[in-house]
Amino acid sequence: MSGPADTPPAAGTVDEAEAARHRAKMEKRKAVQDREVAEKTMEKGLLIVHTGPGKGKSTAAFGLALRMLGRGGRVGVVQFIKGAWQTGEQEAFRAFGDRVSWHTMGEGFTWETQDLVRDKAAAARAFAKACDLMADESIDLLVLDELNIALRYDYLDLAEVVAVLQARRPGLHVVVTGRNAKPELLAAADLVTEMGLVKHHFSAGVKAQAGIEF
Amino acid sequence: MSGPADTPPAAGTVDEAEAARHRAKMEKRKAVQDREVAEKTMEKGLLIVHTGPGKGKSTAAFGLALRMLGRGGRVGVVQFIKGAWQTGEQEAFRAFGDRVSWHTMGEGFTWETQDLVRDKAAAARAFAKACDLMADESIDLLVLDELNIALRYDYLDLAEVVAVLQARRPGLHVVVTGRNAKPELLAAADLVTEMGLVKHHFSAGVKAQAGIEF
Repeated sequence: MSGPADTPPAAGTVDEAEAARHRAKMEKRKAVQDREVAEKTMEKGLLIVHTGPGKGKSTAAFGLALRMLGRGGRVGVVQFIKGAWQTGEQEAFRAFGDRVSWHTMGEGFTWETQDLVRDKAAAARAFAKACDLMADESIDLLVLDELNIALRYDYLDLAEVVAVLQARRPGLHVVVTGRNAKPELLAAADLVTEMGLVKHHFSAGVKAQAGIEF
Repeated sequence: MSGPADTPPAAGTVDEAEAARHRAKMEKRKAVQDREVAEKTMEKGLLIVHTGPGKGKSTAAFGLALRMLGRGGRVGVVQFIKGAWQTGEQEAFRAFGDRVSWHTMGEGFTWETQDLVRDKAAAARAFAKACDLMADESIDLLVLDELNIALRYDYLDLAEVVAVLQARRPGLHVVVTGRNAKPELLAAADLVTEMGLVKHHFSAGVKAQAGIEF
């Protein structure tokens, strides 16, 4: 015969001591969290950079665009490198009508065109379009997709690009994507995320699929 | 007096030797690219994990959902941790009507509720909903947002969750987000991206802003 004190808790249940420990730990965590939130008071348009060899750089930028649309904002997109990619997002953004201003300006992946003069001219046109959108006060968030690639191949003048981004309207959020972001751009950024490649299905022979890669 | 051979190229122009070097380099790059694409022939529903301390884990998952919607697919979302977050995306997804099946099941951040029994029950309900959506053949991509947090706090049985995910329909893509993904989940995944925190505006006193953080 055993009293209630000897009965082990059934699987999936929680004993009181465990619950109390959890509560104490989470109260401490909440205090830290609340203090951290209280310390942050500034609002500003952010310069955000998504870089690194992993997936999700452009995808997260378009996810941010989606969030801004959900908040009633307007979004601009300039694609510096045109490819077979992002056609899914472009199609989906049609649901938001003229709240998305989408511009595919690049000339395809540079290894497709193999024409440096044409690539430089296309990058210059794309950056001019980016400048137009930065001046458009109805735009809340601007995605400069694969701008890092154009900078990496010196299609654009790095110092000029960074200066223009730094001189943007105070409220404008800008997201720059692409591998190998330049240190000068990272120095100017407010938020930098490095997407790291831990494991990729291409290595297992899986091909690019609609709705996932494009 | 200097002949044409001595004239340096004007700024922004490209000399022929440079153009030729670029072309040769990019031809080589294209050959590698084409070979790599040709080697990938398999199609399968992917188990994708977005983890790491940086931003963009959920954002990239919702970006993938957007891409799938752009391709005409249907998307399911189960949020394992409810917070003030992702309300922007949820609002934006209304544009796609019943092509998005959205379920916020969690009980808030665990440090808000401080109630282990309630958190475990909420996680179990969320996972049951995830199982329903996995069985729904009209769903092409399922986002299990912050499932990693529920696993990290042992709200759910890890082995059971991994087994259920591995036994999913062959065509179903599943995206799991949240910090501190368990090694057993990473082992089962096809694609893992680690979002690394390089620089964060919260450290500079900037607060969470609509359209960016929520």
